[in-house]
Amino acid sequence: MKDTSTNMRLKLPVACFILEIILIILFGVFVEYDRDTSAKLHKSDRNDYDNDFYYRYPSFQDVHVMIFIGFGFLMTFLQRYGFSSVGFNFLVAAFSLQWATLMQGFLHGLHDGKIAIGVESMINADFCTGSVLISFGAVLGKTSPLQLLIMAIFEVTLFSVNEYILLGLLGTRDAGGSMTIHTFGAYFGLMVTRILYRPNLNKSKHKNSSVYHSDMFAMIGTIYLWMFWPSFNSAITEHGDPQHRTAMNTYYSLAACTMSTYAMSALVAHDGKLDMVHIQNAALAGGVAAGTAGEMMLTPFGSMIVGFLAGIISVLGFKYLSPILEEKLKIQDTCGVHNLHGMPGILGAIVGAVTAVAIPKEVYGNGLEKVFPDVASGERDTSYQAGMQAVSLAVTLSFAIIGGVIVPGEEHHHQELTAVRTEESDKLND
Amino acid sequence: MKDTSTNMRLKLPVACFILEIILIILFGVFVEYDRDTSAKLHKSDRNDYDNDFYYRYPSFQDVHVMIFIGFGFLMTFLQRYGFSSVGFNFLVAAFSLQWATLMQGFLHGLHDGKIAIGVESMINADFCTGSVLISFGAVLGKTSPLQLLIMAIFEVTLFSVNEYILLGLLGTRDAGGSMTIHTFGAYFGLMVTRILYRPNLNKSKHKNSSVYHSDMFAMIGTIYLWMFWPSFNSAITEHGDPQHRTAMNTYYSLAACTMSTYAMSALVAHDGKLDMVHIQNAALAGGVAAGTAGEMMLTPFGSMIVGFLAGIISVLGFKYLSPILEEKLKIQDTCGVHNLHGMPGILGAIVGAVTAVAIPKEVYGNGLEKVFPDVASGERDTSYQAGMQAVSLAVTLSFAIIGGVIVPGEEHHHQELTAVRTEESDKLND
Amino acid sequence: MKDTSTNMRLKLPVACFILEIILIILFGVFVEYDRDTSAKLHKSDRNDYDNDFYYRYPSFQDVHVMIFIGFGFLMTFLQRYGFSSVGFNFLVAAFSLQWATLMQGFLHGLHDGKIAIGVESMINADFCTGSVLISFGAVLGKTSPLQLLIMAIFEVTLFSVNEYILLGLLGTRDAGGSMTIHTFGAYFGLMVTRILYRPNLNKSKHKNSSVYHSDMFAMIGTIYLWMFWPSFNSAITEHGDPQHRTAMNTYYSLAACTMSTYAMSALVAHDGKLDMVHIQNAALAGGVAAGTAGEMMLTPFGSMIVGFLAGIISVLGFKYLSPILEEKLKIQDTCGVHNLHGMPGILGAIVGAVTAVAIPKEVYGNGLEKVFPDVASGERDTSYQAGMQAVSLAVTLSFAIIGGVIVPGEEHHHQELTAVRTEESDKLND
Repeated sequence: MKDTSTNMRLKLPVACFILEIILIILFGVFVEYDRDTSAKLHKSDRNDYDNDFYYRYPSFQDVHVMIFIGFGFLMTFLQRYGFSSVGFNFLVAAFSLQWATLMQGFLHGLHDGKIAIGVESMINADFCTGSVLISFGAVLGKTSPLQLLIMAIFEVTLFSVNEYILLGLLGTRDAGGSMTIHTFGAYFGLMVTRILYRPNLNKSKHKNSSVYHSDMFAMIGTIYLWMFWPSFNSAITEHGDPQHRTAMNTYYSLAACTMSTYAMSALVAHDGKLDMVHIQNAALAGGVAAGTAGEMMLTPFGSMIVGFLAGIISVLGFKYLSPILEEKLKIQDTCGVHNLHGMPGILGAIVGAVTAVAIPKEVYGNGLEKVFPDVASGERDTSYQAGMQAVSLAVTLSFAIIGGVIVPGEEHHHQELTAVRTEESDKLND
Repeated sequence: MKDTSTNMRLKLPVACFILEIILIILFGVFVEYDRDTSAKLHKSDRNDYDNDFYYRYPSFQDVHVMIFIGFGFLMTFLQRYGFSSVGFNFLVAAFSLQWATLMQGFLHGLHDGKIAIGVESMINADFCTGSVLISFGAVLGKTSPLQLLIMAIFEVTLFSVNEYILLGLLGTRDAGGSMTIHTFGAYFGLMVTRILYRPNLNKSKHKNSSVYHSDMFAMIGTIYLWMFWPSFNSAITEHGDPQHRTAMNTYYSLAACTMSTYAMSALVAHDGKLDMVHIQNAALAGGVAAGTAGEMMLTPFGSMIVGFLAGIISVLGFKYLSPILEEKLKIQDTCGVHNLHGMPGILGAIVGAVTAVAIPKEVYGNGLEKVFPDVASGERDTSYQAGMQAVSLAVTLSFAIIGGVIVPGEEHHHQELTAVRTEESDKLND
Repeated sequence: MKDTSTNMRLKLPVACFILEIILIILFGVFVEYDRDTSAKLHKSDRNDYDNDFYYRYPSFQDVHVMIFIGFGFLMTFLQRYGFSSVGFNFLVAAFSLQWATLMQGFLHGLHDGKIAIGVESMINADFCTGSVLISFGAVLGKTSPLQLLIMAIFEVTLFSVNEYILLGLLGTRDAGGSMTIHTFGAYFGLMVTRILYRPNLNKSKHKNSSVYHSDMFAMIGTIYLWMFWPSFNSAITEHGDPQHRTAMNTYYSLAACTMSTYAMSALVAHDGKLDMVHIQNAALAGGVAAGTAGEMMLTPFGSMIVGFLAGIISVLGFKYLSPILEEKLKIQDTCGVHNLHGMPGILGAIVGAVTAVAIPKEVYGNGLEKVFPDVASGERDTSYQAGMQAVSLAVTLSFAIIGGVIVPGEEHHHQELTAVRTEESDKLND
């Protein structure tokens, strides 16, 4: 007995120390400042304000708030796992930021053996961390902090490979991450929660029900995500009008989505009462669904249609699909990420493919190059672009599902440990 | 009985669906991207950073947080109506954003039959939504979500007409909305709550008293509003020094206001204890009162005097005027919007008129054009400008008061329905 | 008896009114808009966007949130002094902003007898206020609001003198304030709490233990501070790459610090359970420790080492040093500011000195001038710069410790009053 708890006591510290020391060494060997971060690398007559920092940092901070407060804290707080979830999320997120910087850097190509980083790579690392936290929303309550760390190591790696295939090889556009972040994170998490299926979890299901204060907290989280989603989708679009347009498309998509969410929530209830879980989640589906096409000439009109549909799909998912997934497929989706990130992510991918081909390239004027560089250069036409967008969805789903099946399999040997540590982690709530 | 509840169950969804479909159609017909949002509409040699997005978006996000978290969530949470208020506010705010985009667009003039939108129109839509939420602060606890939606349809329309008369026809300056947002929203709401007067509401008055956790939440709301008010007032001023100046004037006005609020709150109490309601509200009055003159050469000195007075007026209002309004005039001002938005808004309008004439136009140097374009062009002198500012206050009060009397009258036929739905909405708290 | 309470009732209002009126008069005499805030002071062909506002205001807002929500509200909420602490912090912070504007302005030199203010002076005033709130974290629970106001008057003055000696006379670099803000604020507060030592405070120590909801609130505070610390450290660095670099160095320092904090917290616990107080505080030490060297060529690699060490030191401080300070030295450090601001601040100062000499000046290329202007001009070499950095730490510690001993001594005559008022202030919690 004493042996096990000594084990407990040492395993997490040792893992954190070793991982961080490895990260520090890798950063020492491979990472350097990019052009905008080091005066040495740019010409002396350069204007101080011609620096990506000034055009991306405010969006970075909004994204940072969404990832750490929104996904990491408030969306999971709802579930009453309280501090154990918050505390572990924070740890794993801090790890993922660093690991993602390396993985994304390696895959996007070294320059003279170095990864050059700046505000854009910080945003990308935050995005990857967001995807990991989405997956955690599916497995919440089943994993120890150590398992979460191991899961994050693999998920960040797979995320980066998938992202590289989409953006680097297929020339896909997905600035707001409908595919790379939301679809990937959701289906990866759903597969892991399927593998870690624990029948007895049903018995403690009352823990999933929310209480008043939790609900108010969660609602703050929802509104924060809702407010900053325009920044999220536009954070790494090209400068100028695409960034402006993406923010606006997302804004109107979310507004329309909120209307349809309330309507559907009242409609599917047998007594007309609104369900807070719907509002806390489905009202955000419009942001997810505008993730791919947001930078395109979707127009506010198109964005509102997309948001309107996303809200409907998401509420229907909570009401009818989630129970089926749990009962028939044994997928216990703790936070309902399939309804907020999974299906709306797929919708977003489809909207992106359709928009790519449906809007004539002339509509972009001289801005075409920034949205579809391969079309502007004449390398491909819009229908080919649309095809690649569709292929990318399939690739993402494959990576997420296969990855989500394999990764926890690797950890299966530690099963007993898991059970003990989970109990342990619950103690933090006392 | 069953009939009524079926009615309930369908009325909100149907209203939401129909309204949203109408909005989508109108957006499809009338709305297009503005110059900064579509590369097609500007020359190819344009710098990407010469885009309003980069100079307004950070302020937009601050305003967005104030409207949705500050006004929409935390100021009303205080009242213990809890989720029903939060949930309905969120719905109506999402609707108002879209409706305001259209109304403000129509009134500010179509170009080739189109409304061109961008980050500035998004800020203006948020401002209009803020005004609606201020009115809700007065009627909180008396209305069903459906009534709130109907009220929002009318209020957004009247707001836009009033704003157009002030800014478009009279050449009034009111960047931070002392008149257009705060005075209008407060007196409109006060009139509606007068019309909807329910004597029995007094009996459940204990619901208005705050509890510890609510108070801490509300205090967060206060501090958020306090912090971002400089962004609010400067969000749509002209670029450059007026924007810089407005933020600074507001900052010092709020600091001085906080000092006088604490002083007055301790002074008017019979035991020297500070009253949290005063601090949560009156400490913000300095932001409201700097809304009109903030962009003018008010100087930090002048701003501090204005804030100092605003705090005093606001605390006196809570202590002595609100009870009179309720007892003599039957105006039940649930959140005390008259003290935070009404009187400080009028003070702000007066300060604006006085500042316009008191500061010689030479003080503005070559910046005069951005603050008083009509004075710079020689079309009017400063005293004429001051006169227009004063006339604008009268116009705003007339619109608010007459509008607030007429609108709920239209809804009076639904009185019985109201009673039922309000009860219903309270159930959400269980 | 009645006499005393009348005294109570009048003392705070009178103090607030008199202080604010003095502030207003001083602002009227000495303060004017700076070049970027008044079009009159710059040439007419100047670009509107060549305005500090656009390059500092987003950071200012992040700093503002950290000071008022993070330090002022959430870090102290933890201690269950609840509203009395929050309310008084807010008051004193609003006062300090204004007083700091004057003190810093006087010391940095008047131009034609005037203090010119703009967004940078607002950030500096916020920084000074942050230092005051850090000190409050040490004395929390022992002081009346009036005492806090008096303490703020002296602390702001000493802060400004120390800052002027460091930045103005010694040519020290300390953009993120490891020395000027954190070390100064912490040791000043620790000295004051030593002087105000109350043996009976131990008995009510249970008040210091946190409860569930307080912990969740405090954790929000922690994450907010953690997210915005990159903005804090980079807010007043030179434009361009130094600002970009500082934000990034801080980001990675915090990520590494979080990893070592979790590891150490689990390691020092006898049962392997994480201690929330460690996580709420020590995870932020990486931001403090990157305050001086953040703008230098510390590299992400170096930043991560610094953050890693800061987390370890901070947890060890909470676990082993704080109890010793309380028992042996009678320093009751209510919020543990020695562990979050004191030791990590000293670490940051040392890292700054070492980095200044360890990184060859050639590494900065043509950016040297912005980081070490005296080295770039040939006035001093890097080892002299490093020496000045080290001297600055000694100066700061002397000012903080001597100031912290003298200031409350001045107030000792009011001791009896203190006891009464503190009781009074506790009533606010009921």
